[in-house]
Amino acid sequence: MPPKSGISRVMSTHSTLLLVLDLVGTFAFALNGAMTAVRFVRLDIVGVVTLGMFTALGGGMIRDILLDALPPATFLDWRYLAVALAGGLLAFVLSRGLEKLSMPIIVLDAVGLSVFAVLGTFKALDLNFGVVQAIMVGTISAVGGGTIRDVMIQQVPTVLRSELYAIPALIAAGCAAATYSFGHHGTVAALSAASLCFVVRMVGVRFDLHAPRPWGSDRSG
Amino acid sequence: MPPKSGISRVMSTHSTLLLVLDLVGTFAFALNGAMTAVRFVRLDIVGVVTLGMFTALGGGMIRDILLDALPPATFLDWRYLAVALAGGLLAFVLSRGLEKLSMPIIVLDAVGLSVFAVLGTFKALDLNFGVVQAIMVGTISAVGGGTIRDVMIQQVPTVLRSELYAIPALIAAGCAAATYSFGHHGTVAALSAASLCFVVRMVGVRFDLHAPRPWGSDRSG
Amino acid sequence: MPPKSGISRVMSTHSTLLLVLDLVGTFAFALNGAMTAVRFVRLDIVGVVTLGMFTALGGGMIRDILLDALPPATFLDWRYLAVALAGGLLAFVLSRGLEKLSMPIIVLDAVGLSVFAVLGTFKALDLNFGVVQAIMVGTISAVGGGTIRDVMIQQVPTVLRSELYAIPALIAAGCAAATYSFGHHGTVAALSAASLCFVVRMVGVRFDLHAPRPWGSDRSG
Repeated sequence: MPPKSGISRVMSTHSTLLLVLDLVGTFAFALNGAMTAVRFVRLDIVGVVTLGMFTALGGGMIRDILLDALPPATFLDWRYLAVALAGGLLAFVLSRGLEKLSMPIIVLDAVGLSVFAVLGTFKALDLNFGVVQAIMVGTISAVGGGTIRDVMIQQVPTVLRSELYAIPALIAAGCAAATYSFGHHGTVAALSAASLCFVVRMVGVRFDLHAPRPWGSDRSG
Repeated sequence: MPPKSGISRVMSTHSTLLLVLDLVGTFAFALNGAMTAVRFVRLDIVGVVTLGMFTALGGGMIRDILLDALPPATFLDWRYLAVALAGGLLAFVLSRGLEKLSMPIIVLDAVGLSVFAVLGTFKALDLNFGVVQAIMVGTISAVGGGTIRDVMIQQVPTVLRSELYAIPALIAAGCAAATYSFGHHGTVAALSAASLCFVVRMVGVRFDLHAPRPWGSDRSG
Repeated sequence: MPPKSGISRVMSTHSTLLLVLDLVGTFAFALNGAMTAVRFVRLDIVGVVTLGMFTALGGGMIRDILLDALPPATFLDWRYLAVALAGGLLAFVLSRGLEKLSMPIIVLDAVGLSVFAVLGTFKALDLNFGVVQAIMVGTISAVGGGTIRDVMIQQVPTVLRSELYAIPALIAAGCAAATYSFGHHGTVAALSAASLCFVVRMVGVRFDLHAPRPWGSDRSG
C-alpha cells in the first residue's frame, strides 16, 4: 500500500463514527446513482452499478485531487469500494419495486449531499487548508458525485438547475467550519451540520423553492 | 497553508503584472461562463455563478493536475476565487441588459483563452517541463474551462466545433514558449503572445473561418 | 524534466514490448476517437484530432491521477503524444473512405480497451497497490478514454450502455492481476489477458449480448 494516505491520517483524529457516516453518505449516493440509471436511462446491470459507483466515489475523488491527498481515499480504502458496489447492486435488485418512486432518489441524494459537505470540510481543515478553501472543498465534494452522474446521462447537472442544491451544501460546510474552529469536529458536530443541510434541501424540494433567477422566466433545462 | 504551492514559486519569478493578467483572464472566463448560463440555460443565481466559477477555475485546475502542481493554484489562492465569484455575480446582475448580446460572450471567451494559453505555457516552463509539454499544457488550460462549461450545459465543446478555437491558443502557446526560450517571460512577452491569439481568434469569428473538414459538408453540432 | 515519473520506473521493469503494446493501444484509441468525430459529429480537422487525442490519452491520465503518478505518463512522454496525434491525423485523412464503416471503430475501441485494461493493472501492481485497486484502475483506464469521448460528443457513455463493455475489461484486469501474482508480467501475459478481453468484447458485439437489465425492456440511450 502506498505511503501517502490522507484518509488514515484524517480519520485517526476522529471517531470511527465519522467513518461510518462517510460510508453512509457513500451508500446513499450509490443507491441514488443506480436508481437514477434505472429510472432515466434503463441501463443493464453493469451500467446501473457503474453509475452508482461514479456517483458515490466521484465527489471524494475530486475532493482529494483539490486537497493534493492522492491517491483518493475512496479508491484506496476497500470499504468505500465495497459499500458503493453494494449500493449499486441493491438498487438494481430493488429496481422493479422502486421504479415509480422519485422521492427515494431525492432523499438519498440529500443524505449524500449533507454528509459529504460536512466531511469534506472537516478533511480540508484537518489537512490545514484555510477556512474558505475548506468550505469550497466541502461544497464541491457534496455536489461532485451528482454532477458526474448528470453529465454522464446527458442531463444539466442539478447543481446548475438547483432548486436550492448548492446552497444547503454551502450552509452545512460553513457550519462545519464554524464548529471546527471551536474545537468541535466529532460526530455530534458533523451530524448537526449535516442535518441542517438535509432539512434545508428537503424544504426546498417540498415547497419548490429556488434562488433568484435573471428574469421571472419559467424554468428550463 | 500546505507547503507545496506552485503558484508562489512561479509568480515570484515574474512581475505582479502577470498575476494581474491571470486574474483578468479568470474574470473574463467567469463573466463568460455566467453569461452563457443566463443566455442558453436560464439558470438561477446559484447556477449562473457556479457555471461562471467552473469556467473561470476549471482550466487552471486541469493545468495543475497535469503539472503535478496540486493543490491547484486557482483553488489555494483566494484572489482567484474572489475574482471568479465577482465575475459570476456581476454577470448575473447585468444579465437583463446583456441577454441579447452574443458578442461580449465571444470576446470574453477570447480574452480568457489568450491569457491562459500564455500563462499556462509559462508556468509549465517555470516548472522545468519540456517545450512540447508546455505548449500542450498552455493550450489545454486555455480551452479547458470552456470545455467544462459546454459539457455541463449539454453542448458539444467549442474546442471540437472550433471555428479556429484551439489553433489560436496553440499559436499563443508556441509564441510564449519561443519568447521564454529567449529569456523573455515578462509582461510584454505575455501580452504580445496573448494579443496575437486574441486577434487570430476574433478574425476567425468575424470572417467565420474554420479549419478543413472531412467533406465539404455543412457544419453541424 | 520533473523528477517524479511513474512511467520510466514502471517500464524499466518490463520489456520494451510492453511500451510498444501501450503505444498500440494509444494509437487504436486515437484512430477510434477521431473516426467517431468524423462519423457522428463531422468536426473540422482540429476537432477530429482533438477528440482522437482525448480518447487516446484520457484513460491514462485518469489512471495516473488515481495512482498518484502525476504528471501523467501519457503527457510527459512525447511518444504517447506523437502516436495520439498521428492516429488522429491519419483518421482525418482516411475519413472519406471509412465513413460508411462502423466495424473499424468498434474493433479499434476493443483493441484499446483490451490493452489498457491489462497495462493499467500492471502499472498499479508495479506501484505496490493492492489487487482490488489494481483491477479497478485497469478497468477505469480501459473505459476512461471512451467515456470522455462520449461525454464530449453528447452520447451516453458506452460503459453505461454496455453490450458487455466493462465486463471484458474487468476480466482482462483480473487475469492480468492473476498472472502478475504468479510472477508473469511480461509481454506474453499481457497479450494473453488482452486477447481474452478482445475476444469477449467482440463476441458480445457480434451476438449482441448484454448483461441483465432491470426489466425485459428494449434498449435505450
